[in-house]
Amino acid sequence: MGKVICVGLGPGDPELMSVKADRLIRSARHIAYFRKAGRAGQARQIVEGMIGADATEYPMEYPVTTEIHFADPEYNRLLAAFYEDWAQRLAELAQDETVVVLCEGDPFFYGSFMHLHSRLQGRAEVDVVPGITGMSGCWTATGIPITWGDDVLTVLMATLPEEELADRARDADALVVMKIGRNLPKLRRALAKAGRLGAAWIVERGTMEGQRVQRLSEAEEVAPYFSVVIVHGQGRRP
Amino acid sequence: MGKVICVGLGPGDPELMSVKADRLIRSARHIAYFRKAGRAGQARQIVEGMIGADATEYPMEYPVTTEIHFADPEYNRLLAAFYEDWAQRLAELAQDETVVVLCEGDPFFYGSFMHLHSRLQGRAEVDVVPGITGMSGCWTATGIPITWGDDVLTVLMATLPEEELADRARDADALVVMKIGRNLPKLRRALAKAGRLGAAWIVERGTMEGQRVQRLSEAEEVAPYFSVVIVHGQGRRP
Repeated sequence: MGKVICVGLGPGDPELMSVKADRLIRSARHIAYFRKAGRAGQARQIVEGMIGADATEYPMEYPVTTEIHFADPEYNRLLAAFYEDWAQRLAELAQDETVVVLCEGDPFFYGSFMHLHSRLQGRAEVDVVPGITGMSGCWTATGIPITWGDDVLTVLMATLPEEELADRARDADALVVMKIGRNLPKLRRALAKAGRLGAAWIVERGTMEGQRVQRLSEAEEVAPYFSVVIVHGQGRRP
Repeated sequence: MGKVICVGLGPGDPELMSVKADRLIRSARHIAYFRKAGRAGQARQIVEGMIGADATEYPMEYPVTTEIHFADPEYNRLLAAFYEDWAQRLAELAQDETVVVLCEGDPFFYGSFMHLHSRLQGRAEVDVVPGITGMSGCWTATGIPITWGDDVLTVLMATLPEEELADRARDADALVVMKIGRNLPKLRRALAKAGRLGAAWIVERGTMEGQRVQRLSEAEEVAPYFSVVIVHGQGRRP
């Protein structure tokens, strides 16, 4: 009897993965990970040098990422078929073997693995190992605590409409915004409306080589999708 | 030249601390940690068996925890003096030595170390190693993903007023509530008002021995302070 173990890799620095993740990856005989076709894949790059010589790798290549808008039914159809196919393959493998699935950050926090997790219920035993979130890596990189005392933290995706971003940015004490990329101009306008633009930071490649931490007001107009925008809380402190 | 390194220990299971935290703790010659007077201290318990025989330990004992309400000026005065005293002692030690400060969860996320961090600026070199948050450990323990697609996640402290808890619980897709303890009856009422009580879970001692995961509607009236209440998001999924 095998199982599927999804392992959170943390924010990118291999030393920031958990002792458990490190142990499971080094001893794994079957390792699966998501990637964009034609790319090495961020998850795979994080574990470079850790995978055993006798391990079999299963790159799970997204049929589409940003070429089709996520609101298009075609996007949904393609991804659903992709996840169903891999759920089936992993479930078969897990009849006899243990398969480790790599996942950047923390698997249950906006992770792609969740779409396999829901489809694997009743078809395989599934374990999930939490990881340090990308946002923790990024706020630590700013050198400023994110939340104090009774601060309310709101985590937003920059894919939301501008008005909603502005309203929610106004209402929160501390703010984390993810899925930046082409949504950055909209996010800037929303933060400006909410009066939070001056206090915002942007972190690119947090904890990784090439890490960049800047005030958002001084950053360029375009940023990688996996950048994180941060507004720190100012709560109670003795 | 030494420095102060604050190391996030993660949610409680020692295998969930990072490889970096594990390495720093095992090789540390000076280790400081917060605890309530007369208690072993959660942080110290997590690293049991990892500290070298030649290491010196510095238990930093809070002068007050919940005996005085945090809104009382006396609470503030006592804690400020306590943090100032320890900032001074750690800064002196860090002139020549490296001191590892243990911190449960992720240090910059509602952690006590932040009160030393702000006081150490300009007095010692300070590094912070992020950790898996307690909330990640807890939502993973429920076996259900916390956020999908564009879900908005709000993190609340149960110390907030009931009306604010209710309003914010109504507005968020996914919800994490911390600092539970004696605030649980108020939190229940707030979640009921917001129509979220039926979907709420409570996790006690997440990832640790004695872990308990229950629907909040079926749980007792009283819960430990470090319990976490969770309402999962229901966002977009292909």
